[in-house]
Amino acid sequence: METVSENRAFGGVQGVYRHASTACGCDMTFAVYLPPEAEDGPVPCLWYLSGLTCTHENAMTKAGAQGFAADYGLALVFPDTSPRGPGVADDEAYDLGQGAGFYVDATEAPWAPHFRMESYVTEELAQLVAAEFPVDPGRFGITGHSMGGHGALTLAMRHPERYASLSALAPIAHPAGSDWGQKQLGAYLGANASVWAEHDAALLLRSRGWHGEILVDQGSDDQFIDLLQPEALAAALAETRTPHMMRIQPGYDHSYFFVASVIEEHIAWHAARL
Amino acid sequence: METVSENRAFGGVQGVYRHASTACGCDMTFAVYLPPEAEDGPVPCLWYLSGLTCTHENAMTKAGAQGFAADYGLALVFPDTSPRGPGVADDEAYDLGQGAGFYVDATEAPWAPHFRMESYVTEELAQLVAAEFPVDPGRFGITGHSMGGHGALTLAMRHPERYASLSALAPIAHPAGSDWGQKQLGAYLGANASVWAEHDAALLLRSRGWHGEILVDQGSDDQFIDLLQPEALAAALAETRTPHMMRIQPGYDHSYFFVASVIEEHIAWHAARL
Repeated sequence: METVSENRAFGGVQGVYRHASTACGCDMTFAVYLPPEAEDGPVPCLWYLSGLTCTHENAMTKAGAQGFAADYGLALVFPDTSPRGPGVADDEAYDLGQGAGFYVDATEAPWAPHFRMESYVTEELAQLVAAEFPVDPGRFGITGHSMGGHGALTLAMRHPERYASLSALAPIAHPAGSDWGQKQLGAYLGANASVWAEHDAALLLRSRGWHGEILVDQGSDDQFIDLLQPEALAAALAETRTPHMMRIQPGYDHSYFFVASVIEEHIAWHAARL
Repeated sequence: METVSENRAFGGVQGVYRHASTACGCDMTFAVYLPPEAEDGPVPCLWYLSGLTCTHENAMTKAGAQGFAADYGLALVFPDTSPRGPGVADDEAYDLGQGAGFYVDATEAPWAPHFRMESYVTEELAQLVAAEFPVDPGRFGITGHSMGGHGALTLAMRHPERYASLSALAPIAHPAGSDWGQKQLGAYLGANASVWAEHDAALLLRSRGWHGEILVDQGSDDQFIDLLQPEALAAALAETRTPHMMRIQPGYDHSYFFVASVIEEHIAWHAARL
């Protein structure tokens, strides 16, 4: 693992690191924020998964999360959203290929050799972060925005032993029933809709459920709300009687201004449960 | 004035606007954050001037200021750092021309026709913001980072009737004695060093002084600290016995991670004095 940069932030350290990923078969870049408390021993750790077109950098610079992570004594991890590089398959569309990994392990050509973001996030990077940083792997939480909200919800429900707390911001809630999902799940996993159901938050909640509580925030004026389908997740949360807090926040859109406006409450939510 | 975008943020509105500037002779873009309190009437307003290479956007997206502005009931204004456009003079260097206006009114060719950032910020944009937004022009404060810290300090001391409170983050403190300043003040204002002294924070503090208190924050590990020369400002503050708080913060560098780490204290500082 190589250090790309480290900056003092809120008494802790915001770092960017690069490593050769076995899961993705390419170099991967990620960011870790360590709060001041990490100097005294392992701290709980919140994983933040980003949305379409993002890298490790967007949330690191625009979510305003580090100050609250310092207040609550949480580390933050910002993975990239896909494998990258000249040898990695890509597509001209912004919502497929590089920058759009959808947090699945692809089985279809040309994606299968590198697009293994589920294994990367939940196994390889989780182990690397636990080995290299003063974080407690028994106290990992996960959240994310948009495609990353989809990733947080589905990875948590598929790997409940890995994550102790869960929230999502404007998640793609029902990709198997949306143009943000059918295209990508079809490309990465093939045409079988029963496979897609294993990577769809609203459907997974009904099939596997979640062992804890879930916090979901969604802006009422989100320009992509018809693609996100929060109503599918709300119905599944209510009908499965899963302990949760689901909010439609009036006036907010899909931007990082929304993420920044609610990130403190998400960090506090995870801190209270880790 | 034209609205480029408006996003709900922390219960208020983060807007970006464009207008035809008389002072600069080109279209100028700026950002305004209005806190929820602005719905009930005029609020005090903090002007944030940005550094080299920045536009209105950098601090708007990376400083994490809006949440604290909402908490303290302050509006924020983020001007651009120079005139821009194909008809505007420029230089290949990152630190001269577009993106590097240095908050002066240029008198020299080829800069004089457009590079009038002092008049633009202190007069034209101040009047526009006061006319178009629910802010109280009697309660304007000013701050900024790097070149923008230079701008905040020098514009406040040159226009004390305009600004009631003042702070700076990692400011270019003594441009008349630094490679970050001599080149630009020479290009924009000519070779006469006595003219430069009228745009140098450390020198202005000795010649004109400031009617209030000044807060200055500087990172100890700032990679540009030799260009910024905080020691010149510290000496001037102490020797003129100007009420102030000057801090060298251990471990911080010149990045927005430093700005974000201390912005709450700057907003609180201005709120208490506006």
